[in-house]
Amino acid sequence: ENRLPGYATHQIGVAGAVVDESNGKVLVVQDRNKTKNAWKFPGGLSDPGEDIGATAVREVLEETGVRSEFRSLLSIRQQHQHPGAFGMSDLYLICRLSPLSFSINFCPQECLRCEWLPLEELSRTSHTTPITSRVSRLLLLGLERGFHHIDLSMEEMPAVYSGLFYQLYHRPLAD
Amino acid sequence: ENRLPGYATHQIGVAGAVVDESNGKVLVVQDRNKTKNAWKFPGGLSDPGEDIGATAVREVLEETGVRSEFRSLLSIRQQHQHPGAFGMSDLYLICRLSPLSFSINFCPQECLRCEWLPLEELSRTSHTTPITSRVSRLLLLGLERGFHHIDLSMEEMPAVYSGLFYQLYHRPLAD
Repeated sequence: ENRLPGYATHQIGVAGAVVDESNGKVLVVQDRNKTKNAWKFPGGLSDPGEDIGATAVREVLEETGVRSEFRSLLSIRQQHQHPGAFGMSDLYLICRLSPLSFSINFCPQECLRCEWLPLEELSRTSHTTPITSRVSRLLLLGLERGFHHIDLSMEEMPAVYSGLFYQLYHRPLAD
Repeated sequence: ENRLPGYATHQIGVAGAVVDESNGKVLVVQDRNKTKNAWKFPGGLSDPGEDIGATAVREVLEETGVRSEFRSLLSIRQQHQHPGAFGMSDLYLICRLSPLSFSINFCPQECLRCEWLPLEELSRTSHTTPITSRVSRLLLLGLERGFHHIDLSMEEMPAVYSGLFYQLYHRPLAD
């Protein structure tokens, strides 16, 4: 790409929606320090140099004790003048994860509650955020018709000049 | 979301793939200051506070003289230690745009060549970048089977606490 040197303008936050396909439940938390007790997907800020999927898996483990693996990217939100980013912009990505363990051992400093909640229930409750509600409806569609309807798949590709790898996300090319 | 204050770690670059659906052609450029003459989609860095779609439309106009409008988000690349970002990370997004004008009046400071190229040709040529080649195949799939197979659609939603709006991208909930 033809670009002049720039500077960082965005912080990256990532949440993980861990879906148990055997029973249609998803792992949700309620934050300790919020007035409204809204169910949301566990997540947090990316560390410098950390891949999107790695942030999701790490934050889910830290907050809930559940081990998981990255499956796809589901949604992206861009927000400017984010209150938690000192007036900078925020890019918030929600990933779909598969569970590798199921026992909840949540972090009491961060979470008030943590549960495996039926996606059906999450998609109908008012005790959630607009984005969580939207993504729960998306995940229900995936459960019913197949996740290939809602997923962006990821592929690692070699960067020509640096020898490093980058991650490319887009819709699958073949069904 | 439950997050400690962070800081910006990523620069945001956006490219626009302007597709003329009437003839299956897409607007591509060759950069002036590159050794290899590779076709790519016009694009560049987001200005602070600028929405992803706005960057795509602005960069396409500045580089090629073609007016366009945002349709969807197609692909995201995350790259760390980006050479053009002073060692920070880079998030590069490719949007699908529709043309509002067709006459090319390209910027000779930035571009060596600018053409409406058949997507079929772009998807087969070796004179392009791996990402451009990949996205051209994705766009061909969209032309053949409908863009709803490859698009992330965008919706503006009100932020609860700030009164501002944010943009949310995901797969359409209904077909």
